[in-house]
Amino acid sequence: MLRIGLVGATGIVGQQFVVALQDHPWFELSQLAASERSAGKTYRQALTDSSSGAFRWYCPESASAAALDMEVRATDDLDVSQLDLVFTAIESDEALKLEPRLAEQVPVVSTAAAFRMEPDVPIFVSTINAGHAKLIDVQRRRRGWKGFIAPQPNCTTIGLATTLKPVYDRWGLNLVLMTSMQAMSGAGRVGGVLGLDILDNVVPYIPREEEKVQQETQKVLGSYADGESYADGEFIRPASFPVSCTCTRVNVLDGHTEAVFVSTREKASVDEVKAAFRDYRSGLEELGLPSAPCQLIVVSDDPFRPQPRLDRDLHGGMATSVGRVREDHALPNGLKWVLVSHNTKMGAAKGAVLVGELLSKQGYIGS
Amino acid sequence: MLRIGLVGATGIVGQQFVVALQDHPWFELSQLAASERSAGKTYRQALTDSSSGAFRWYCPESASAAALDMEVRATDDLDVSQLDLVFTAIESDEALKLEPRLAEQVPVVSTAAAFRMEPDVPIFVSTINAGHAKLIDVQRRRRGWKGFIAPQPNCTTIGLATTLKPVYDRWGLNLVLMTSMQAMSGAGRVGGVLGLDILDNVVPYIPREEEKVQQETQKVLGSYADGESYADGEFIRPASFPVSCTCTRVNVLDGHTEAVFVSTREKASVDEVKAAFRDYRSGLEELGLPSAPCQLIVVSDDPFRPQPRLDRDLHGGMATSVGRVREDHALPNGLKWVLVSHNTKMGAAKGAVLVGELLSKQGYIGS
Amino acid sequence: MLRIGLVGATGIVGQQFVVALQDHPWFELSQLAASERSAGKTYRQALTDSSSGAFRWYCPESASAAALDMEVRATDDLDVSQLDLVFTAIESDEALKLEPRLAEQVPVVSTAAAFRMEPDVPIFVSTINAGHAKLIDVQRRRRGWKGFIAPQPNCTTIGLATTLKPVYDRWGLNLVLMTSMQAMSGAGRVGGVLGLDILDNVVPYIPREEEKVQQETQKVLGSYADGESYADGEFIRPASFPVSCTCTRVNVLDGHTEAVFVSTREKASVDEVKAAFRDYRSGLEELGLPSAPCQLIVVSDDPFRPQPRLDRDLHGGMATSVGRVREDHALPNGLKWVLVSHNTKMGAAKGAVLVGELLSKQGYIGS
Amino acid sequence: MLRIGLVGATGIVGQQFVVALQDHPWFELSQLAASERSAGKTYRQALTDSSSGAFRWYCPESASAAALDMEVRATDDLDVSQLDLVFTAIESDEALKLEPRLAEQVPVVSTAAAFRMEPDVPIFVSTINAGHAKLIDVQRRRRGWKGFIAPQPNCTTIGLATTLKPVYDRWGLNLVLMTSMQAMSGAGRVGGVLGLDILDNVVPYIPREEEKVQQETQKVLGSYADGESYADGEFIRPASFPVSCTCTRVNVLDGHTEAVFVSTREKASVDEVKAAFRDYRSGLEELGLPSAPCQLIVVSDDPFRPQPRLDRDLHGGMATSVGRVREDHALPNGLKWVLVSHNTKMGAAKGAVLVGELLSKQGYIGS
Repeated sequence: MLRIGLVGATGIVGQQFVVALQDHPWFELSQLAASERSAGKTYRQALTDSSSGAFRWYCPESASAAALDMEVRATDDLDVSQLDLVFTAIESDEALKLEPRLAEQVPVVSTAAAFRMEPDVPIFVSTINAGHAKLIDVQRRRRGWKGFIAPQPNCTTIGLATTLKPVYDRWGLNLVLMTSMQAMSGAGRVGGVLGLDILDNVVPYIPREEEKVQQETQKVLGSYADGESYADGEFIRPASFPVSCTCTRVNVLDGHTEAVFVSTREKASVDEVKAAFRDYRSGLEELGLPSAPCQLIVVSDDPFRPQPRLDRDLHGGMATSVGRVREDHALPNGLKWVLVSHNTKMGAAKGAVLVGELLSKQGYIGS
Repeated sequence: MLRIGLVGATGIVGQQFVVALQDHPWFELSQLAASERSAGKTYRQALTDSSSGAFRWYCPESASAAALDMEVRATDDLDVSQLDLVFTAIESDEALKLEPRLAEQVPVVSTAAAFRMEPDVPIFVSTINAGHAKLIDVQRRRRGWKGFIAPQPNCTTIGLATTLKPVYDRWGLNLVLMTSMQAMSGAGRVGGVLGLDILDNVVPYIPREEEKVQQETQKVLGSYADGESYADGEFIRPASFPVSCTCTRVNVLDGHTEAVFVSTREKASVDEVKAAFRDYRSGLEELGLPSAPCQLIVVSDDPFRPQPRLDRDLHGGMATSVGRVREDHALPNGLKWVLVSHNTKMGAAKGAVLVGELLSKQGYIGS
Repeated sequence: MLRIGLVGATGIVGQQFVVALQDHPWFELSQLAASERSAGKTYRQALTDSSSGAFRWYCPESASAAALDMEVRATDDLDVSQLDLVFTAIESDEALKLEPRLAEQVPVVSTAAAFRMEPDVPIFVSTINAGHAKLIDVQRRRRGWKGFIAPQPNCTTIGLATTLKPVYDRWGLNLVLMTSMQAMSGAGRVGGVLGLDILDNVVPYIPREEEKVQQETQKVLGSYADGESYADGEFIRPASFPVSCTCTRVNVLDGHTEAVFVSTREKASVDEVKAAFRDYRSGLEELGLPSAPCQLIVVSDDPFRPQPRLDRDLHGGMATSVGRVREDHALPNGLKWVLVSHNTKMGAAKGAVLVGELLSKQGYIGS
Repeated sequence: MLRIGLVGATGIVGQQFVVALQDHPWFELSQLAASERSAGKTYRQALTDSSSGAFRWYCPESASAAALDMEVRATDDLDVSQLDLVFTAIESDEALKLEPRLAEQVPVVSTAAAFRMEPDVPIFVSTINAGHAKLIDVQRRRRGWKGFIAPQPNCTTIGLATTLKPVYDRWGLNLVLMTSMQAMSGAGRVGGVLGLDILDNVVPYIPREEEKVQQETQKVLGSYADGESYADGEFIRPASFPVSCTCTRVNVLDGHTEAVFVSTREKASVDEVKAAFRDYRSGLEELGLPSAPCQLIVVSDDPFRPQPRLDRDLHGGMATSVGRVREDHALPNGLKWVLVSHNTKMGAAKGAVLVGELLSKQGYIGS
């Protein structure tokens, strides 16, 4: 069993990590870290509001008694010498300082944005770009780290990139336009979305979200020339098609909905695209990664699907649901569809655990 | 005062008509019609559920005592000889049969889709295409009617076409892509959206909506060659840019939100487009139409606006709110913005009243 | 295996029955019935809207392929000679005609209100009044039926009666006052709660609900004198404490929340009552009923619990969650608490399946 | 014109004060105060988030340009020598320190709980207990203050006390039980209700709320013996009937709904009670207070009313809506009803302005 550290254990994504790691066949949660305020408490105490007695647990799944009895450390008190892998579920500015310090000693799989756009850092979606893992060798060599930083993309990028991948591979892409209707859990709890602001409403802006999705999608689907940097210092050449988004917030708990319009290079029929979605394989099937869904993309012919409440939990929240695949007559070789992807499962904690599983199989962790 | 008949008086849009016509300086509501079930009752009785005593009134504004005391007729019992204008707030299949019968005698301004795509029928948005009114002369001549049918477009079309108009006029348009997040009131009450289906959810499909918006937007912004039909038998030449939509339903009472992406023919800067929105005038200002908003398009620089709950009621629900105007780098000469438009006010009843006002000023009604 | 017929298979509660009966160790779903409209179709076809292609399935759990491939009959075409037990999930007026016809031949466990207040009909909550089963013998004798009708109480009654039972047994009750905040699924889909009516709102009235809860609670907790009718012709003597309710509807999918105030005959401390809740046993534990929860009442010390979204699914939706147990100083021996109970699981389909299991063990079914 | 200071100007209630004071015929908003962070900015700047550009205004009504251009002071920099009256919209712990300091110099009408239960402090609801004003003379004498502190009760108390008043006056009360379903705006914005916590949910607890409502209702409806303290040192003898509440939070923007059960001393019929509600007058009608509603209690015979979304804004949010008045058979002389009261208008800012108007007419302010 690999010994796992979890930083940011008390937030929404941190709790999803605890759930994703319970009963994990390869990973054993061995150190929990959170802010100073929680240090020295059991996880249960750290989740309990001392004045009101409220127990602040936000997942539909329960935490195990074992997890609730674990002691929470201050982040600075993590004993990385006893860890094989650290997952981080913290804000970007905190990650900027913490993650390099950890990565000197131990692999870090991160849900934070801080290092995603560094040239020697891959943005991993296990089921899309497993081959980018080799960039970790470059990263270690350049930075002299024993560990490394392997971030996931933004939760909104994951569903989009998952559906673009089989289309891009087979027909090529000229451009991608997307409007998202994002769930509240993506905003977390500290500074999260107030009921007063979202009831009977749509909020048409999520700070910094569109830029992330636009850049990260290109990098996730980019090509990696195995150790050689390109002339411009980049190791990963971003996919060349532009991505443009409008990201909005709607009154939904979990599950991001995205309306996608694309123009392909080669003409693709609706039926061909649906088949490509259904047949999409990551190539990792034989690795037996415990958190991988048995189907990556689920296609619906019911025009009223996908819906976030009905489809976000498909295959343990790890599948991307797609529907309304149809021709778009406004763009050359135009196609459009709607997707739903679980933003705190595939889009955050459980997706990061899957990255950990893949890197472990590839020999980057724990050897 | 012009004598007004209202068909479909008990539904959501019908009630909005009653509100829009209360205290109207030119129009006097003189006959109310609804289904057989309501015939012979007062409007108040027709709105009161006999078994439970519930009063089924859905507007934030109250109905006047005078309106509530009016008798409701069966639709077939309308006395059109005593009417100068009929507004209809009924389903398309009912309109298909009823409206021509009425139009033989009396002008009909309709919120139904039934006749929108007929070659000799204009689709009116008073503030966009007042010049299309002359097609009414053709319609009357061809059909031998004393009256005419003048339909409004779909509620989703109106906000979109309103913001496209000043851009199209000045810079031209290559293509328009739009994703809507539509309010529940658009679905009405009979067969309306169940709370069970929309809570914690987005529904990615509204039957027949996308086709309507795509076609109607082109016709609303099309050009009319004054009595001459084009070679293909069309009188109105649709605007040539293609429109492609994905229309979704969200958990909002009133106010459709639309995320728009366009490619213009000539390059336009963000500031120029914002100025064009702010400066947009219908040319009808000096007519003093009672229901016209004092500003047609309200532009916000706050990136979190427009929001349907906060902005739908601007200028009596007759203005279109626009925000997040910015460059789109994926499309040539790309621009994107978000708009909010009130779907049962400007988008239905009150917008239709404005059409009535315009046609009255233009001499098509009541002379 | 007992052969089960299900009437009303396509509604919300009917679908919950299908889920509750899937993989059931004793019961085999062998005939599905619904309205004429569905007759002759597979269950999957009956749930699919022919014009839009929408699949109308409302449970979080999926239906098995076997269930979806079953043929649906018209209710009149049920072959009761091939059934050991029928569950009904239909409206009261339909039940009034249908259930006696079925009961001539076969046991009927009903979720409808039609026969609940008949003197020779018990209202069953398996975990409260298993002893009332003997009234079935009287019912059969008096009516000459081979089968019988055994209705569940209203979904709102079940949670209330469950928490009252241990208090009533040990300390007696003088009176019960309750305000409910009920979920939308309780209203079903035909004529169900519109999103327009419930968003940003509370509806303070549910027709006929309060009367049901008030009467049924007394009957469920009443005493049965084993075959002897009381002087007034009643077989079950209702519990003597009055129950008064205000029943409201809130914007919640599933799970009724109830704020309860009681006055006990003997003084009970808060700690004693909490212990009585925690220790409550139905006495059926050794019967091994497959749908029985491992704990009937779950007590929370977190003052922010129970909450419908977080607690409705405890123990498969079959437990009643209680919190905020505290003294009420306004009533003599006053106590107050808040409970949450799943209205379509314990409160309808799965609760009825549990009734079927109990009656089967008691020898009333299938022998 | 009286010169008004407003403390806590940027919060929800503070903004409601700004709206309530715009165009006020007697009061002129002359100084705005908020936290240090806002000091020196214009009100518009103080409401604008500097990083995102968002304008944090939460009322449906707009702020006037004049208000938005006012300078905001730090609370310590209020120049009370230039003020005739201060309204406070701050948390209780801040009020505890600030209000006595202000009251040394100037009258303070407060929405905070800090001083409500002091013996020489009245809790004012202008329309219920105008006679308690004389306690201000005692307060000034005892404390040697030039000004005074006059707090409003909690927003939940106001609707309850308003409906109890005419019943108590005419028939007496033995006990009151109430379950509230409270709106989110009552929780404010700092530490306010997260969308994640309230969507598809009810939260059955609001810290410290029940105690406030229980005590304050008795004091508001208590009797004041004109300058003489009672033996126990109290000046106001609380009404003797006990009040017991369960306070819950529901997914509603504004408007508290309360389900009330009472036992009266003398028997009252439903019709008599409805008449007493309809006929209730504060006795202040001839004072012409600008913020007083033309009707204090609006009674509905529609059993589905009152509903918070439909009824909260009646008479400018200053009326209490009552419906479902009916007998309660569980309590001796039992009655029950449901009420809706606007929690930030009558229940906070605008109600406090009405208190200011009354005290000004009574000569306690500005002379």
